[in-house]
Amino acid sequence: MTSRTVFFVSDQTGVTAETLGHSLLTQFEGQQFDHVTLPFIDSVDKAQEAVQRINAVAAEQDSRPLIFSTLVQEEFRAPFKKVRGLVLDFFHTFMAPLERELQQKSSHVVGRAHGMSDLGAYDQRIDATDFALLNDDGSRVGEYDKADVILIGVSRSGKTPTCLYLALTYGVYAANFPLSEDELESGRLPKVLDPYRDKLYGLTIAPERLQQIRKQRRPVGRYATPQQVRYELRAAQALFARYQIPYMNSTECSIEEIASRILSSTGIERRVRA
Amino acid sequence: MTSRTVFFVSDQTGVTAETLGHSLLTQFEGQQFDHVTLPFIDSVDKAQEAVQRINAVAAEQDSRPLIFSTLVQEEFRAPFKKVRGLVLDFFHTFMAPLERELQQKSSHVVGRAHGMSDLGAYDQRIDATDFALLNDDGSRVGEYDKADVILIGVSRSGKTPTCLYLALTYGVYAANFPLSEDELESGRLPKVLDPYRDKLYGLTIAPERLQQIRKQRRPVGRYATPQQVRYELRAAQALFARYQIPYMNSTECSIEEIASRILSSTGIERRVRA
Repeated sequence: MTSRTVFFVSDQTGVTAETLGHSLLTQFEGQQFDHVTLPFIDSVDKAQEAVQRINAVAAEQDSRPLIFSTLVQEEFRAPFKKVRGLVLDFFHTFMAPLERELQQKSSHVVGRAHGMSDLGAYDQRIDATDFALLNDDGSRVGEYDKADVILIGVSRSGKTPTCLYLALTYGVYAANFPLSEDELESGRLPKVLDPYRDKLYGLTIAPERLQQIRKQRRPVGRYATPQQVRYELRAAQALFARYQIPYMNSTECSIEEIASRILSSTGIERRVRA
Repeated sequence: MTSRTVFFVSDQTGVTAETLGHSLLTQFEGQQFDHVTLPFIDSVDKAQEAVQRINAVAAEQDSRPLIFSTLVQEEFRAPFKKVRGLVLDFFHTFMAPLERELQQKSSHVVGRAHGMSDLGAYDQRIDATDFALLNDDGSRVGEYDKADVILIGVSRSGKTPTCLYLALTYGVYAANFPLSEDELESGRLPKVLDPYRDKLYGLTIAPERLQQIRKQRRPVGRYATPQQVRYELRAAQALFARYQIPYMNSTECSIEEIASRILSSTGIERRVRA
């Protein structure tokens, strides 16, 4: 099967168009798509150029391109009336019912989403990212008062990327603490975590998957052996049970899913909206 | 003005619904919205519960709720026909034209986007995140062969969060190297970067904004003084010019925008799709 070209057209970064388009296209199995993002289309000239570029691709291929657009302003959208492809226009489609419901015309201003419309949100995300970096892997434990959540689990269970994602996306303060041999053998939490029991959230993962991940990182030694991996995971789960720490299995989850499930199950509020 | 409640309903994380809703709602100035995400609605029971919860809110408020839905399966969407609010149904709206165009029924399977449909993509993002962490702030320079891009700039110009975002979102290998007094005074790049000149990308920022950011971090000393900040930024820009390093001003940009502009201007391919 030949692949079809998909364009993501935006007056801004294209992140929204990509997210929306991707979630639709994953519903069509067996189709092959070539992705092209055309961001920062913020003038009539650039819009016309984009249309020309898409039409040039259309002229060369058997099937016409798909175009996912989040263009806001009417004058930038107008040139796309002549494009040789299927346009799915996210803004135009939903704006009319929203305007009726809210009894207000939308401002039709470029680049509100993912922009710097809110400086406070930006600072919040940066501050949370700094926090995640400084409080990664139990490297510092004096700032847990500020933490919204403290992830615990064995090495390579997904703690660090989840903390970074929570910070960058939602401005949430997430620290993480690795369960070491001490904790796993004794079955006891370290004293430093005692005052923060209600902030703890555990991550576990299937032994086969953990072994695979660890092997990529450190192929030799005990670290990635089936015995060691199974022992650590069993001990960690026993510890979660003993202290009634809520936890989830990250095996089949993407980073977004882990983050989203943690927020959903703990009730932690997003400090910034995606 | 009273605020209106907005629900983001999803059979998965809710990230797509939030992205869509947020980008539309930012177009309505002066309106106040309360956001509630209802993720993982993956059974008829949960769908009915969600509808009850939304209707309970509707009964208490003057204006009816807005509901952004990315529910895929018809049987989970059905209960929402009785919801007391405006439903903007993302999948239903765009799936029909796509199915016609692709001459294929969509699979209507829950949780394709943001899921683990692609294990390789997950591993790629984790590997890129590890790379960003290990190659942050010039801490290690032996892995630059693997880098897609090496960000350079003065302290607090946005390098680290941008690298982490590029890794977590796009699986791109981004290192960063801080310009120190040595480089700024001599106007010369360090030898270690010589073989990687074509991977360099500069970040600069307005002096007032940099001063503000640095003050939050270290209020005393030379670090955040207007003189020091202006000197460093002038020297960094002179260095970008001398070596013809492409660069951008991050002052008015969110992390997404910085990342997106770097990819767009360098032509670096996303290794994973958002």
